[in-house]
Amino acid sequence: MTETAVAPPSARTRIRRIAENADYQRSTLHAIIDAAYVCHIAFVDDKGTHNIPTACWREGEHLYIHGSNGGRLLKLLAGGIQACVAITHVDGLVMARSAFNHSMNYRSAMIYGSFERVTEDAAKRAAMDAFMDKLVPGRSAEIRRGNDKEFAATTVMRIALDEAVAKVRTGPPIDDEEDMDIPVWTGVLPLVQMQAAPVVAADVAVETPAYVRQWQGVCIEDKTA
Amino acid sequence: MTETAVAPPSARTRIRRIAENADYQRSTLHAIIDAAYVCHIAFVDDKGTHNIPTACWREGEHLYIHGSNGGRLLKLLAGGIQACVAITHVDGLVMARSAFNHSMNYRSAMIYGSFERVTEDAAKRAAMDAFMDKLVPGRSAEIRRGNDKEFAATTVMRIALDEAVAKVRTGPPIDDEEDMDIPVWTGVLPLVQMQAAPVVAADVAVETPAYVRQWQGVCIEDKTA
Repeated sequence: MTETAVAPPSARTRIRRIAENADYQRSTLHAIIDAAYVCHIAFVDDKGTHNIPTACWREGEHLYIHGSNGGRLLKLLAGGIQACVAITHVDGLVMARSAFNHSMNYRSAMIYGSFERVTEDAAKRAAMDAFMDKLVPGRSAEIRRGNDKEFAATTVMRIALDEAVAKVRTGPPIDDEEDMDIPVWTGVLPLVQMQAAPVVAADVAVETPAYVRQWQGVCIEDKTA
Repeated sequence: MTETAVAPPSARTRIRRIAENADYQRSTLHAIIDAAYVCHIAFVDDKGTHNIPTACWREGEHLYIHGSNGGRLLKLLAGGIQACVAITHVDGLVMARSAFNHSMNYRSAMIYGSFERVTEDAAKRAAMDAFMDKLVPGRSAEIRRGNDKEFAATTVMRIALDEAVAKVRTGPPIDDEEDMDIPVWTGVLPLVQMQAAPVVAADVAVETPAYVRQWQGVCIEDKTA
């Protein structure tokens, strides 16, 4: 599928609540996954329904995860059970004139399907490199790469983005006509995920690399003053 | 339970992967929920396993959600099915000397159980007020509160924090002894959720209230300069 293709929704990914916020574009789905460091994976075993957070990244039309071979999540997923992966970014609180017209701006993604193991050695190594490149581009070349023992102890899995959907709300509040005379501030109180000042470990003797210097510190603009 | 009591873990909430990161303190669990605007709720219906994001808030030893009576999530949950609620905050990327010692700092919460409807009218109104007070303290007094029709069309539900657990990682990377001579920067690249500059709606004619002025704008400190 191309970046702009629209995937046809399945019975599970056709959005029914506030259907105008559904977004079936691949590019929207990709951007939501790419902005996330973790996803939540829902699955069922003999103890019930679970929901486990884990680091994730995307390559093409798959979402990847990894973990120790011994982990419950990966062992169960390897059995081919159906999973549902969810990612949500909250972008702001939407302030309306009436309590029930308040809302949130957000971007969310949901993926249904089964995970498959990435078993081929080169593919596994390439996937882990892609994960590091997502976290910190360029760092792979500086660190000790995984050795055979580490790779053997690690499971890499992926789920196809075939049955997947995004849901997005943006923009100002939508008030009812009869509330428009209520004298109250309305608008959006935005939330953003920011990079804060890097914390160097105690025993570092090298120069600070560009990707650390470029990790942005933030400062609070005191608007109460 | 008091703020400092430790809840005994169940078979489902006893952390086995990286068990030293488990935190069974109520105060930790409460803080993670209170810092979240949304949670992800896993549940099962006849179409499979689902994972739906929804706004949440806490009062005492319950996590609350709400929505339109017609919503699939709330209708199914009202049937008393088992759910698993997950919340995760990513606090930083942990940079180690070897690829496989990289990690993330995070705070996560997981709650198992069944939701119950809040049916009593006063309790429902109090819960929705508590939600607004979490979002923006003080705003309830300025807006049009929910009317009978709006409350009648809305379902409020809650889940007890009885079978719940937190998992937290903080601090620097932990390197293997044999990697300590690798000359690479190590430390933490922190991530924070920040308030960004408020966006006023086009048709607002009132003075900016204190809670909007205090919603902090952020500015980027350009560390590349």
